[in-house]
Amino acid sequence: MNEARQYKIGLLGCGNVGRGLVELVNRNRSLIRERAGVDLSFTKILVRNLDRERPAVDRSLLTIQPEKVINNECDIVVELVGGLEPARTFIQEALAHRKHAVTANKALLATDGSSLLQAAASQGVQLGFEAGVCAGIPIVRALQNGLVGNSIQSIAGILNGTCNYILTRMIDGFEFGDALREAQDQGFAEADPSLDIDGHDAAQKLKILSELAFRGNIYPGSVQVRGIRGITAGDVAAAHQLGYAIKHVAIAEMHEQTVSLRVHPTLLPQTHQLASVRDENNAVLIKADAVGEMLFYGKGAGALPSASAVLADIVEIASQKRPEMRVPDRALATEPLDHTGQSYVRFTVERATAIGPIAAALQERGVTFARAANWAKSQFKEKRQISIFTHSCASSTLQSALRQISASGVLRGTTVVMPVAS
Amino acid sequence: MNEARQYKIGLLGCGNVGRGLVELVNRNRSLIRERAGVDLSFTKILVRNLDRERPAVDRSLLTIQPEKVINNECDIVVELVGGLEPARTFIQEALAHRKHAVTANKALLATDGSSLLQAAASQGVQLGFEAGVCAGIPIVRALQNGLVGNSIQSIAGILNGTCNYILTRMIDGFEFGDALREAQDQGFAEADPSLDIDGHDAAQKLKILSELAFRGNIYPGSVQVRGIRGITAGDVAAAHQLGYAIKHVAIAEMHEQTVSLRVHPTLLPQTHQLASVRDENNAVLIKADAVGEMLFYGKGAGALPSASAVLADIVEIASQKRPEMRVPDRALATEPLDHTGQSYVRFTVERATAIGPIAAALQERGVTFARAANWAKSQFKEKRQISIFTHSCASSTLQSALRQISASGVLRGTTVVMPVAS
Repeated sequence: MNEARQYKIGLLGCGNVGRGLVELVNRNRSLIRERAGVDLSFTKILVRNLDRERPAVDRSLLTIQPEKVINNECDIVVELVGGLEPARTFIQEALAHRKHAVTANKALLATDGSSLLQAAASQGVQLGFEAGVCAGIPIVRALQNGLVGNSIQSIAGILNGTCNYILTRMIDGFEFGDALREAQDQGFAEADPSLDIDGHDAAQKLKILSELAFRGNIYPGSVQVRGIRGITAGDVAAAHQLGYAIKHVAIAEMHEQTVSLRVHPTLLPQTHQLASVRDENNAVLIKADAVGEMLFYGKGAGALPSASAVLADIVEIASQKRPEMRVPDRALATEPLDHTGQSYVRFTVERATAIGPIAAALQERGVTFARAANWAKSQFKEKRQISIFTHSCASSTLQSALRQISASGVLRGTTVVMPVAS
Repeated sequence: MNEARQYKIGLLGCGNVGRGLVELVNRNRSLIRERAGVDLSFTKILVRNLDRERPAVDRSLLTIQPEKVINNECDIVVELVGGLEPARTFIQEALAHRKHAVTANKALLATDGSSLLQAAASQGVQLGFEAGVCAGIPIVRALQNGLVGNSIQSIAGILNGTCNYILTRMIDGFEFGDALREAQDQGFAEADPSLDIDGHDAAQKLKILSELAFRGNIYPGSVQVRGIRGITAGDVAAAHQLGYAIKHVAIAEMHEQTVSLRVHPTLLPQTHQLASVRDENNAVLIKADAVGEMLFYGKGAGALPSASAVLADIVEIASQKRPEMRVPDRALATEPLDHTGQSYVRFTVERATAIGPIAAALQERGVTFARAANWAKSQFKEKRQISIFTHSCASSTLQSALRQISASGVLRGTTVVMPVAS
């Protein structure tokens, strides 16, 4: 067995993930030395407040000056401060100093990923970002290495643990607001949860994965995004009654050189592989020409799962075994997909007779439907709501019917529309 | 973008996986060049019969002389002939010629894996074997790279597609023999299926994964192995009635520096992540200190899924980015685990009154149980069988009761015992 190579980490940020990384390196140092032949240690750690209690972190390493981390004798800079600035500047400076860098910053990767990767390549150093997508699930690696010989056809994932936790609680009967509060109490949702529950976090992850899978740059605005606000326990129950689970799904598909990307709540058959993903877990289903369908499942957030991904990048870079990230600098053509299939639609109405104009508008366009059975009746009494499942139709046809229904004046609130997957 | 590097493959064996590899390299050559910067081609291909029809394979590359493949100007030798000999000699010769090698040969890896890895290391070349375990599922990579910073606690997997296909058909009511014949018709079982259905194939895969995960050599005889012969449609139905699926599960657990390894049919709660794995699919559930539980799921066999794994190894080795396989050359301590928990037991008896001595032997040892309900009655009439679910007890206690029951003379055939997982 060869001797272990000394490898020094400069750490920017010592929040949950940063402390997780320190803990994991300390705990598994000898195991990593044995497996990979590298001996890891920290040089300096950037913090905002020197006095905060951080068990297991050596106080003598702490500094409030970022240049002390970036400019010192470290081999690799790990950025865990989050947000766009100063994180972007930190990484740019590290790369300019010809230091390798590792980040878990998905917002930054989604906006500046390709320019940072090019900066790294032009300096002859590496930028690792496994932790930016689904934490410890090695999905970036799978696309780069394990599936390197495959042409990827589609990606479908549950990429946001907060949404999935809330939707799981709603299966147990919680209303959206109560489920969100429980997620916040459990630490699975931020005080301001909008990035998660409005779908933007999942859209960022989908963009990063799609750029790797389909090899090119994707304009951020080309992801169709809908979040989970507005879904009620009644919707979840109506779906359940017919054998479906409502899940917040991110989908990217390649059709003839064009990628379509969307993130929205979807009714999945309970036998679908993503339907059984519970609580704060993530899952990614890849469809590729050689392997067929392949699922990766695990914790998509958390201090130690994220630290595990950061550490995998550090070790690969340290042992000089990280594959180059070759993503061509070209724009991928994208287009929204005109979903054709079944849909779930919930109307809020004044009177039960509203079903007349609703049915008329649909039938005029050849769209047949079934009403969501028993649930709809009690729901109608309390909440003046009517839920239907349409049979397969183009979403443009459905949208045209919905415009006519809206114009007929029978609606009294928002209409919720969700595709039903087969 | 750097120029692509020419990389030449010598291929030993052109059966299903070999032809799949040729097809995949031809189809995705430009994609691989773009992603990884290597340009793959074949130099020579060893076959047994030059005249056999092989669409898409260039006949001018074929040879029946192995030395023409191994000794020529190729950069890497891919062994897909299978079996212990001459595959072992082929790989040893390739390594002796300082060629990298890739193999999908799990039987050879299970018997000679560590000596071949050491031979490769001493020659300064690489030996790739991702395809040896679960085909295209990148589980070897996950243990080497993605989870490199984790201490692995356990591995639980459905590692044999044939067993899982048969057990899935039995849920639909097929008897074992009919399910096996269907698996053979579908190409999911060999004419001689014993390697699969008696559990040895899964045991080999478990041994290979465990040596990577727990870092050391495992004596092959230390895997407790039971196959799926003897399970009846009645057992599957009785389990289903109480919310369980019978699955053939491979489990390796680390307890205080000692590994226990076993492969056997198990009753899994239908909510268990491995319970929903259907048909010929494989799944591996890893439990590790940082990431918690992580599941990898996909096709565990087949020409293209296996070729995908072979190709991933070739590309990593070609781009000089394959992590060294550092498995220390030390023996891991192993011990059988005295399972404590519920068990399913089916007795074949002469008369219904046999329940008396059975109950007495169990109750004497404090083992309480429930009879498998309605099913058991009709089953008893036709087949003189009694099925019970014991409450939690040590397997040694249960075995002692079973010996007493056997000695009492009330049994008329084999007794089937399966652990029930919680």
